[in-house]
Amino acid sequence: MNCVRVGRWVKRYSNSRSRSHFPAFPERRRPMSSPSSSPIEEILKPTSFNFKIYVAQKANTINRALDAAVPLKDPMEIHNAMRYSLLAGGKRICPLVCIAACELVGGTEPMAMPAACSVEMIHTMSLIHDDLPCMDNDDLRRGQPTSHKVFGEAVAVLAGDALLALAFEHIASSTVGVPSARIVGGIGQLARFIGADGVVGGQVADLTSKGQSEVRFEHLEFIHLRKTAAMLEGTAVLGAVLGGGSDEEVEKLRTFARYTGLLFQVVDDILDVTKSSEELGKTAGKDLVDDKVTYPKLMGIDKSREFAEKLKEDAQEQLSGFDPDKAAPLVALADFIAHRSN
Amino acid sequence: MNCVRVGRWVKRYSNSRSRSHFPAFPERRRPMSSPSSSPIEEILKPTSFNFKIYVAQKANTINRALDAAVPLKDPMEIHNAMRYSLLAGGKRICPLVCIAACELVGGTEPMAMPAACSVEMIHTMSLIHDDLPCMDNDDLRRGQPTSHKVFGEAVAVLAGDALLALAFEHIASSTVGVPSARIVGGIGQLARFIGADGVVGGQVADLTSKGQSEVRFEHLEFIHLRKTAAMLEGTAVLGAVLGGGSDEEVEKLRTFARYTGLLFQVVDDILDVTKSSEELGKTAGKDLVDDKVTYPKLMGIDKSREFAEKLKEDAQEQLSGFDPDKAAPLVALADFIAHRSN
Repeated sequence: MNCVRVGRWVKRYSNSRSRSHFPAFPERRRPMSSPSSSPIEEILKPTSFNFKIYVAQKANTINRALDAAVPLKDPMEIHNAMRYSLLAGGKRICPLVCIAACELVGGTEPMAMPAACSVEMIHTMSLIHDDLPCMDNDDLRRGQPTSHKVFGEAVAVLAGDALLALAFEHIASSTVGVPSARIVGGIGQLARFIGADGVVGGQVADLTSKGQSEVRFEHLEFIHLRKTAAMLEGTAVLGAVLGGGSDEEVEKLRTFARYTGLLFQVVDDILDVTKSSEELGKTAGKDLVDDKVTYPKLMGIDKSREFAEKLKEDAQEQLSGFDPDKAAPLVALADFIAHRSN
Repeated sequence: MNCVRVGRWVKRYSNSRSRSHFPAFPERRRPMSSPSSSPIEEILKPTSFNFKIYVAQKANTINRALDAAVPLKDPMEIHNAMRYSLLAGGKRICPLVCIAACELVGGTEPMAMPAACSVEMIHTMSLIHDDLPCMDNDDLRRGQPTSHKVFGEAVAVLAGDALLALAFEHIASSTVGVPSARIVGGIGQLARFIGADGVVGGQVADLTSKGQSEVRFEHLEFIHLRKTAAMLEGTAVLGAVLGGGSDEEVEKLRTFARYTGLLFQVVDDILDVTKSSEELGKTAGKDLVDDKVTYPKLMGIDKSREFAEKLKEDAQEQLSGFDPDKAAPLVALADFIAHRSN
């Protein structure tokens, strides 16, 4: 596998799903502060932006909104199970991307907040179902026993179903200040990325590849472009559509999310073999036990790290045509995902 | 249990979820052909309408639309599982109600067709998940082995998830000739009826009541008003909203669907103890084996039949303010559900 070609490969795959063409360095359409620097240098310039403070503030708002979106009420058992997994912490990367994408194209946080909660509900649903005994059979998630360990398998399946339904209800019923046509468009796009052609399709491919002695790089990419990246793509597209982004802006954010999602998975695979369960908040070394195909298994740790770095750069490159101040959260997010320790 | 009071009871429950009030005989708002007959007599008058032909024609169109909505494509395994359950036949009651509700308030079949396919996808999803070993553990559905018996539990869970996501994608992306605001409103309402306060909440209550020696009538109603009736309510509301129905019309159709849904369950319970697996196309006598609380168990077969008749009348009463010709399919549907043999 030639790591230098990875960005090009992902781009080629990306183009096969969309008819748009994305130049490596899109034409700058907004004035930058320094005419002598390149767009990518401009976007990566040190700024006063503090990602830690940004994340803490946004996560606080998102967590309050999630808490309000799923109140503890009758029937208690199902709402309790939904809240248990949804409010168990987590990095809130999906909601952050949804809000940042909306703001980057000229929208506001309140326009994107119900959608941001919805994508976290969908992400949580996928985790609850993936952890089931019939799938990844995982006991630990976000540092807590998984849903089926606490509530039993039946309620875990149903909590996932309820979260998925609530996600669409919440976008449709709670989004304010956004034209209906954008909401319909956003729902259609998001749903496409999480269904059989996206997140679900990736999980099926992942399950069927377990224990296979010969899995090629292309198959691993197929899995993770769907299982992980598609969730973030749907999220970014939803935020950008709600914010009123142009087709070109929506596509750039989708591609950013695609690289960033794949980056997340590569780093996840690396962490699985280099960190303890305690550090990760979930069962470490599980990929090896499950005889699962991972990036380190296919290309080794060092090449996996190089691949991650390349994906991060390719992701950030997509933001080079936007206002650097508004793009700062997403630029920093890609850095954070690349260098995270859990 | 006083059967005569059932209609009033369901109406009271219905009002607790909605602020509207429905008189038993709503004021007639459209001219009827015979000024001497009452609205309910008018709607029940023998007409030239042939339900069998109507159902055959609509089911044919719906099945073609479902086939086109879920093409067999990569990833094959998941699309195959989705199609296996979705195209296994079934009564197509949800799509019929969706289309009939849309047409009754002035909409057209093409306006409602994507939504009609979507509600069948959601209904199928709920059947796939309910049949899982961790839930009702059923081997037979619509005369065929259940999804998990054919594809395994993991793929069955994921096929359900994918159908739920596709349902929302399909309404949002394929509905044409309907203002976006109606689509957003319809999606929000439908999602509410299938989530934790509706279908999913009913299934949780059903599971927790299994094997309980003392289950009261109110608890049984709680289960089925959610597990079965809510699916049909969401369906009718969606169709009526897409068709541009007034709030009053939407509420009448919702109440019609509520009674009809409950009616379906009461008849289902009766059939479970009076018919064979062969006649039903699913495992007969299973409620007794599972020690499940049913209407015949709580009130006996005869009283259950009286209850079913009352529900049918209450459902049909909701249609008395509409054009009898346009209401004919729904009037006949309630008759069909009340007197079906499988």
